[in-house]
Amino acid sequence: MLTNFLLPENRAHGSYSAMSAWMSFFHRQPLVFLPDVTSMVSAAAMSGSGNLMDFLDEPFPDVGTYEDFHTIDWLREKSRDTDRHRKITSKSKESVWEFIKSLLDAWSGWVVMLLIGLLAGTLAGVIDLAVDWMTDLKEGVCLSAFWYSHEQCCWTSNETTFEDRDKCPLWQKWSELLVNQSEGASAYILNYLMYILWALLFAFLAVSLVRVFAPYACGSGIPEIKTILSGFIIRGYLGKWTLLIKTVTLVLVVSSGLSLGKEGPLVHVACCCGNFFSSLFSKYSKNEGKRREVLSAAAAAGVSVAFGAPIGGVLFSLEEVSYYFPLKTLWRSFFAALVAAFTLRSINPFGNSRLVLFYVEYHTPWYMAELFPFILLGVFGGLWGTLFIRCNIAWCRRRKTTKLGKYPVLEVIVVTAITAIIAYPNPYTRQSTSELISELFNDCGALESSQLCDYINDPNMTRPVDDIPDRPAGVGVYTAMWQLALALVFKIVITIFTFGMKIPSGLFIPSMAVGAMAGRMVGIGVEQLAYHHHDWIIFRNWCRPGADCVTPGLYAMVGAAACLGGVTRMTVSLVVIMFELTGGLEYIVPLMAAAVTSKWVADAFGKEGIYEAHIHLNGYPFLDVKDEFTHRTLATDVMRPRRGEPPLSVLTQDSMTVEDVETLIKETDYNGFPVVVSRDSERLIGFAQRRELILAIKNARQRQEGIVSNSIMYFTEEPPELPANSPHPLKLRRILNLSPFTVTDHTPMETVVDIFRKLGLRQCLVTRSGRLLGIITKKDVLRHMAQMANQDPESIMFN
Amino acid sequence: MLTNFLLPENRAHGSYSAMSAWMSFFHRQPLVFLPDVTSMVSAAAMSGSGNLMDFLDEPFPDVGTYEDFHTIDWLREKSRDTDRHRKITSKSKESVWEFIKSLLDAWSGWVVMLLIGLLAGTLAGVIDLAVDWMTDLKEGVCLSAFWYSHEQCCWTSNETTFEDRDKCPLWQKWSELLVNQSEGASAYILNYLMYILWALLFAFLAVSLVRVFAPYACGSGIPEIKTILSGFIIRGYLGKWTLLIKTVTLVLVVSSGLSLGKEGPLVHVACCCGNFFSSLFSKYSKNEGKRREVLSAAAAAGVSVAFGAPIGGVLFSLEEVSYYFPLKTLWRSFFAALVAAFTLRSINPFGNSRLVLFYVEYHTPWYMAELFPFILLGVFGGLWGTLFIRCNIAWCRRRKTTKLGKYPVLEVIVVTAITAIIAYPNPYTRQSTSELISELFNDCGALESSQLCDYINDPNMTRPVDDIPDRPAGVGVYTAMWQLALALVFKIVITIFTFGMKIPSGLFIPSMAVGAMAGRMVGIGVEQLAYHHHDWIIFRNWCRPGADCVTPGLYAMVGAAACLGGVTRMTVSLVVIMFELTGGLEYIVPLMAAAVTSKWVADAFGKEGIYEAHIHLNGYPFLDVKDEFTHRTLATDVMRPRRGEPPLSVLTQDSMTVEDVETLIKETDYNGFPVVVSRDSERLIGFAQRRELILAIKNARQRQEGIVSNSIMYFTEEPPELPANSPHPLKLRRILNLSPFTVTDHTPMETVVDIFRKLGLRQCLVTRSGRLLGIITKKDVLRHMAQMANQDPESIMFN
Repeated sequence: MLTNFLLPENRAHGSYSAMSAWMSFFHRQPLVFLPDVTSMVSAAAMSGSGNLMDFLDEPFPDVGTYEDFHTIDWLREKSRDTDRHRKITSKSKESVWEFIKSLLDAWSGWVVMLLIGLLAGTLAGVIDLAVDWMTDLKEGVCLSAFWYSHEQCCWTSNETTFEDRDKCPLWQKWSELLVNQSEGASAYILNYLMYILWALLFAFLAVSLVRVFAPYACGSGIPEIKTILSGFIIRGYLGKWTLLIKTVTLVLVVSSGLSLGKEGPLVHVACCCGNFFSSLFSKYSKNEGKRREVLSAAAAAGVSVAFGAPIGGVLFSLEEVSYYFPLKTLWRSFFAALVAAFTLRSINPFGNSRLVLFYVEYHTPWYMAELFPFILLGVFGGLWGTLFIRCNIAWCRRRKTTKLGKYPVLEVIVVTAITAIIAYPNPYTRQSTSELISELFNDCGALESSQLCDYINDPNMTRPVDDIPDRPAGVGVYTAMWQLALALVFKIVITIFTFGMKIPSGLFIPSMAVGAMAGRMVGIGVEQLAYHHHDWIIFRNWCRPGADCVTPGLYAMVGAAACLGGVTRMTVSLVVIMFELTGGLEYIVPLMAAAVTSKWVADAFGKEGIYEAHIHLNGYPFLDVKDEFTHRTLATDVMRPRRGEPPLSVLTQDSMTVEDVETLIKETDYNGFPVVVSRDSERLIGFAQRRELILAIKNARQRQEGIVSNSIMYFTEEPPELPANSPHPLKLRRILNLSPFTVTDHTPMETVVDIFRKLGLRQCLVTRSGRLLGIITKKDVLRHMAQMANQDPESIMFN
Repeated sequence: MLTNFLLPENRAHGSYSAMSAWMSFFHRQPLVFLPDVTSMVSAAAMSGSGNLMDFLDEPFPDVGTYEDFHTIDWLREKSRDTDRHRKITSKSKESVWEFIKSLLDAWSGWVVMLLIGLLAGTLAGVIDLAVDWMTDLKEGVCLSAFWYSHEQCCWTSNETTFEDRDKCPLWQKWSELLVNQSEGASAYILNYLMYILWALLFAFLAVSLVRVFAPYACGSGIPEIKTILSGFIIRGYLGKWTLLIKTVTLVLVVSSGLSLGKEGPLVHVACCCGNFFSSLFSKYSKNEGKRREVLSAAAAAGVSVAFGAPIGGVLFSLEEVSYYFPLKTLWRSFFAALVAAFTLRSINPFGNSRLVLFYVEYHTPWYMAELFPFILLGVFGGLWGTLFIRCNIAWCRRRKTTKLGKYPVLEVIVVTAITAIIAYPNPYTRQSTSELISELFNDCGALESSQLCDYINDPNMTRPVDDIPDRPAGVGVYTAMWQLALALVFKIVITIFTFGMKIPSGLFIPSMAVGAMAGRMVGIGVEQLAYHHHDWIIFRNWCRPGADCVTPGLYAMVGAAACLGGVTRMTVSLVVIMFELTGGLEYIVPLMAAAVTSKWVADAFGKEGIYEAHIHLNGYPFLDVKDEFTHRTLATDVMRPRRGEPPLSVLTQDSMTVEDVETLIKETDYNGFPVVVSRDSERLIGFAQRRELILAIKNARQRQEGIVSNSIMYFTEEPPELPANSPHPLKLRRILNLSPFTVTDHTPMETVVDIFRKLGLRQCLVTRSGRLLGIITKKDVLRHMAQMANQDPESIMFN
């Protein structure tokens, strides 16, 4: 239908403004599944042209939109946008007002980016502050103002000295408040109970809100966003309700202490912002292709605020999430990511005017010999990634197929209870995961009082601050070691069960925590080995006594990168995010070594990252750019109809009646039909969409005189020559796509896959010597790929 | 021809190994324009199959390669690589040795990246050291060892104290050495003359070397690399001679003091390294598509060493240079860029263990009010970009079309002489441009002794080191200001004439210098204004007396970014490169504001950056991804033959004789011919390349019995039924591409352009209802685009 706009006869006076008028209804109703078509058709028909014959040359409503759970046609969207742009450009020469409007249109992209950045940054800041307060609420309350977090409470209090920031009288643990006891077994049990109660309350609230108001708010959202960006329609997935509920429940679940992170969901939240703002500008709201450009940039802004890494965010969007990423989007994404990062910094939720909670600075370089433990951490990360993906997918499949899936609230309550009960006694699982990561990343400076920095100081040495030499570990470090080991096992197990529950849940933070714990333990091990055995040949060259040669915090960071890489298979974006955390090129080589090793190890067990695995689990029609198709099949092997199947359902250009077509539509569920010259010659002239055929026939039957079941439908310019007494024919050239995409039957499938990927097609017709042989849809391609990879082709559910 | 490998009958026993054998000859001879085809054909035929009938089912040499100045077919290259990959995978299951070979093949990509990184880093280091020495050679010589630069000479000398590093007795100016005078007019004149002499010598050597040994070594190389990466063949452009000569002459021209930089040519050098190493691995040497992936990564490595910015380098390659940039390349580019950066750092040419000469650290933040001068600098950058591009292109066109182009050596000599004569008296033009930029970027610390930091200190204040308050400018600063103004005008003028001469020349550094000079002057202006008028309303809020509020160095950096952006139209990569120079997010907003303004201002005068302008000037077939095609034309308007032109030259599948085809080939110069069922039906069955037709016929005539001029050529599976006495028919199905790309005549040109861009086609056939109507080549598309943009369509020179 689009190409008809471009036909020579329409060049001078296209019907753009009419099109925009009746198209705007649709995006106002993001939750409507299938709007009542008939009433709208008749309403539109009221304003139809007087010329009955050419009635259908006027556009009618709902053409050019897509149904829910359908794939968009990228080429067509792009064409429509060019058309729109052309209109505006030609109009802009007419008057000053039109010129200003064209300028506004050109600038709307930047405005949308600015707004997305501002809102995403603000939401991230609010979420950070709220999580901070509610996490502390599980332990106690501030007497001066209950909405203060522990830190804020003691900072505003005048009675505390700098050293005692953690213990101020205004901050009362629940046991102090309720039974006036701060020490002892009963106080401990009371605090323990309150901790569990709050956790359960938060989790229950979250899962109920999600179930009642926005079922799409659950999960990390990244698999679905990847699918949407690749050109799939899921109505309401990025709606306003999802935005609101996801933001609120994200705070609740993170505060409840469950083993999940807010980073993935923040990308979803940012994309919801992107969708919201793009609906304000007709340039984006009416074009699914352009809208996806905005969403790509929004994803970048999401990661930017999640990690305080604007460049990393852009690369994440480019590498991991986006499908169509033109250079213009790169530049705009960067702008959105920067605005978001600066907004977050102005809110300053962590009180350190840094963008990130775990900003670190190390004081010593790394040595070549350390590459060995770094690579070991990479192997660990790869194994963890494989283990996590396999177990999590198995559990999620179980949830989908067994009774388990019917009790999402109960599941969340049980997992929260188990998490809270096991987490509380261990200080490393009790504190929030991002604080844990921050502590593990930190270098032990002179002022550090954490248990992990409980080294035995040499009393003879009085060197201050930064450059502290390696020291033997004290009791605290040994305690920390076994506590960390227990926490590690617990995190590994519980995260597998947590990710995929019906609550917002990201896995960046839990993955990083697993890696950071393993890394810190390895780091302390190497450090102590180097201290006690600095005569060993491997240490002799770089670690003299009294030197500060091993930084356990760096190992934690390397481990975190390795584990995150193993799970998500991110590469460049991962390293860049980590680079932005440390702010120096110095540590890129260890990070890269670990990330590469982790990816290789994980890839050896299975190519899919966690997001692709979830996409497959849900059967979304996602054509991954990274998968290489290397089989020797031809288009003829994939096209429908197969050998032995009934022939392809086609329309002829001027010999079928309205009834014939209606029967065909009723009996099949294809999305469209090729139009051929005649059944004998089978020469292709175009393609008609099912949706548009239905609308056109309905419309004509209601409004056009003389159209009966016996009317001949024709797609040619001129009506066919008919016997004198035959009913009025119906002209449908308007809805015919005159430039359907074709390949020959001998085209290798790798080329076909490439064409589908790069041009974003929905379907492609197969011909031989100009004769139509069959059709290949995106679903056929995905099924064929699944079959070739020995997977169940029926797992692809949508088209 | 490729698709034939994929035909069902060939699936089991493809002819890969034979193919690799006869293909390897080609890439050993990068300078050969058109190899002697006949001798190779006969040589290959000696080993041909015994079955004469199927003789042509055996591959013959030179098929699958491209001629010089031709466009490659990306789809075909990709297909060939998949084919190769498939072979290796299936073979790898046969034996352990094949498995190891397949692993080696899979790793070869990483090995190539490692080698490129090492060589590019080393070459950059060597160039830096050599330039350092030779630049100083213009002023004097080291007595202890003539190969020491001024700095090295005085560092190794024991007689100097730390303060007097610049003046040590071992380093002698030419006047001291030759006439034993260090001061006075005659010494000055002698030094002046020596300076000019050395500059002329260096420039003469450089231009002679380029002319005699490697004409492709001139210019920055980036326009040509962009074209090559988009799929164009320029034999020898990335050859070993070019690598060697460009490296040597780059040192010479930079040392000669001409207004040019080494950054652009370094990208060319790195790409030559990439081409060299890719020729060592058959995976890359035999596939023009895969080779371009390596070249993209090499370009990233080039920028990485040029600026010490690995991430910026990758983004530069992605944004500015590359055409086809799959995600795998992103990751590998990053690896190559990192290796290159670390190699350079190990060589440590600047002696500061930094990657870059102009690494800076500022101590004060910027204020919102400063955005105004920053945006002004952006406007200046945009104007400079426009001026430079227009004047430079006009001058280069003059050089191409008038006598001027015939005396490249004289031109270089004259420009060098003028540059040296004018540059010497002004200290800011005498010193090397990168040192100038470094000095302009620097903040005036307490230890800074440069003229630019000659402020009047308040004798009452004794605050040391970093946080120096704003002070009134001293005499030195005022002198510096007018010297800078003169230097600015000189740089602007001379750079226009320098860029495009027959020597290696980059314009990153001159552009940055122009911006840095303008920025520093604006910065000092704002600083003095703020100092003398801190009661003005705009300063009152942020600049109290005694505060350090304006950093002129930051203005220089912002100006440099703006000017570079105006000339090259880089956006994200520019900001990221600058971000890597300063290493903090703090100054990204000023840089972005300036870069965006500069791009907008420059784009308002013309969309083309300097590289695109040079591509157009040279008529390369470059289909820019950034150009949007928004006209309402259809495929039928662009295809050949036009209305009134003779019909398309086609081959029929089984009715033309060898002589007919030979006549057709002789009379036309098309690159290939569509094959149709018959002239009546005009139904397309495939496409045959001219080059392959010629080879096949020559081959058959020589080696196959019974092939005479009257032999029927057939492209079908079975020979046609012929009269009993007719000569032996010739089977040519082997060279027929059975999956030519087709579009209908009603396809909008914007879709056609999109298809050409995204799939990298050479040509596309146009059909209507299965009948062949015409053909569109890449050249047709480019001509049409030029016509639509009111440019001369004849400017597109190659196909």
